[in-house]
Amino acid sequence: MLRPDHYFRSPPATAPAPRSVSVLAVRTLSHLRPGTLPLPRAAPPLRGKTSNTVRASAPAAREADSARMPALAHREVAQDLSAEVEARLGTRLLPSAVPVDVAEFRNGTGSAVGSLDVRRGAPGSSIDFMLQSSLHCKVPTGAIDITSILIFLNASTDAPHFLLELIQGSPTLMVVVLDLFPRKDLALHPEYIEKYYENTQLDKQRESIEELPQTRPYRSPSLFVRSAFSPTAILVTIDCGQGGEDVLEDIVRGRLASVAKGVLQTWLNSCADQALEMEEGERDSMLRRDRIVRLKSIEVDLTANLPRMFDPDVSSRVIAEIRKAFGVE
Amino acid sequence: MLRPDHYFRSPPATAPAPRSVSVLAVRTLSHLRPGTLPLPRAAPPLRGKTSNTVRASAPAAREADSARMPALAHREVAQDLSAEVEARLGTRLLPSAVPVDVAEFRNGTGSAVGSLDVRRGAPGSSIDFMLQSSLHCKVPTGAIDITSILIFLNASTDAPHFLLELIQGSPTLMVVVLDLFPRKDLALHPEYIEKYYENTQLDKQRESIEELPQTRPYRSPSLFVRSAFSPTAILVTIDCGQGGEDVLEDIVRGRLASVAKGVLQTWLNSCADQALEMEEGERDSMLRRDRIVRLKSIEVDLTANLPRMFDPDVSSRVIAEIRKAFGVE
Repeated sequence: MLRPDHYFRSPPATAPAPRSVSVLAVRTLSHLRPGTLPLPRAAPPLRGKTSNTVRASAPAAREADSARMPALAHREVAQDLSAEVEARLGTRLLPSAVPVDVAEFRNGTGSAVGSLDVRRGAPGSSIDFMLQSSLHCKVPTGAIDITSILIFLNASTDAPHFLLELIQGSPTLMVVVLDLFPRKDLALHPEYIEKYYENTQLDKQRESIEELPQTRPYRSPSLFVRSAFSPTAILVTIDCGQGGEDVLEDIVRGRLASVAKGVLQTWLNSCADQALEMEEGERDSMLRRDRIVRLKSIEVDLTANLPRMFDPDVSSRVIAEIRKAFGVE
Repeated sequence: MLRPDHYFRSPPATAPAPRSVSVLAVRTLSHLRPGTLPLPRAAPPLRGKTSNTVRASAPAAREADSARMPALAHREVAQDLSAEVEARLGTRLLPSAVPVDVAEFRNGTGSAVGSLDVRRGAPGSSIDFMLQSSLHCKVPTGAIDITSILIFLNASTDAPHFLLELIQGSPTLMVVVLDLFPRKDLALHPEYIEKYYENTQLDKQRESIEELPQTRPYRSPSLFVRSAFSPTAILVTIDCGQGGEDVLEDIVRGRLASVAKGVLQTWLNSCADQALEMEEGERDSMLRRDRIVRLKSIEVDLTANLPRMFDPDVSSRVIAEIRKAFGVE
């Protein structure tokens, strides 16, 4: 069965031969993905003004980045979502303050390029941070492209986080991970399921993707990752087979774009503003869970994989910045 | 997509037309299944001596039961598993004390027949109860047959429960639900995942079933049910298509039997004896979770569905007995 992780079963072009070949794309709780969304020059900016200013100070890096990070339909979809978030959340998102050498980075031989943007939530808002990233990495069989948007909420609410990850292993094959990421033990809290997943009819979005004949369920090899998602999570491989480049692009721009937008709307309408009275113990318990999920996902994803693609100093910088965003320095 | 729940989208032959047609087989946390495993007369007993004695007092009922509960390969598989459990747990299982009219029951028109057996764990053991049930119910398109084995542990351990449910919707189609059912919030307890699911390599059993071309993932329509299973749970539909009666039987007697035995062995070796020191708060939290899962599964399954198949007095008796076993009277 062809899956994107196969690309990483062969080591990336520039990585030293690993002792054990770990899997990148399938370790997908998924905050490893360095890289903001690659913009055509004419496209509207994805980040706030500060970000652009920061980036303007590194024109050479941006030039090289444009050259190497390919324009892909899935990145345009992510870009549209990002624009929607910024329009809706507005001043509740602070400008980015990610250092230039983390905002865009590459490995020494140029086989991998990435970018990362983190915007913290404004004081008093329910937003903890919004993280956008993009990664393009050459592998012996071609390249892998990963684009992520994570919007995590803080302790003023128990509402789920938003999580999107698109892992494109070839022009015909992609893994989609899209979820309103739960913050409570669902078996212990049926009312949480009802409030955020049943009443919002999120399962219809999942069904809408899964009814496509090109999709099959995607199962992370990490049991922890599998355990962390909601019961309506979209976890699928879209495999359009040989010659299916146009089919994949149509699905991405059509059904996938529509479903991702639908899930985001649900999150914006039902989660992003849900400040909530909670008992102290309940809040502590939620924060403890949040912290373990964040730590574990960084351990599973980043520390295992990023150093295989980027030089140690680069991966350390990127990991440090993501740790900072996650509040688990 | 043909699924067993379709059989119940039409009301059972004898049930009053329901206002809302609820789904039986897919509401599968699944303790609704009245009925012990139907035994050919020559087969070794499934229950302890007391059970047989109880049953011997109702020869007429047994006669009718034998006539109506068809012998099926999946029931033989369950019977073998049950025999293995009884051999291994031995005196840790008390004899059954289920009343005769719950041990075997039927509806007034004879379109549905079921049986239930519950054996409590002996004092000082880690076993809470072992529940075996079988149900045969005629529906307009044929019949549905459900066989279950649940072995729940008590608060002396946090080890997972054992849960098997086989829902046969036709001679060519079956849903398999097989899990070591977790008792902790897995996202909060990665060490629990490691201990009971990773180190035991349970995922290989799941893969062994899912690699069959006749299987596809089974997804319960209940989001709560989906949330309650472990990440290595086997939740599949085996669909052998028109004319595939022999294929299904071969799979059931071959791969399914082997996998179910493997999972049971893991449970017997790694869970059934795992008495564990726990802090009081930890134990309380686990018991609270256990209780909600039990209550919710009874609500989802039994109270919604059993009265649709059996006369009210019968379903009430059966539900009461299961509530007693579950400790949620």
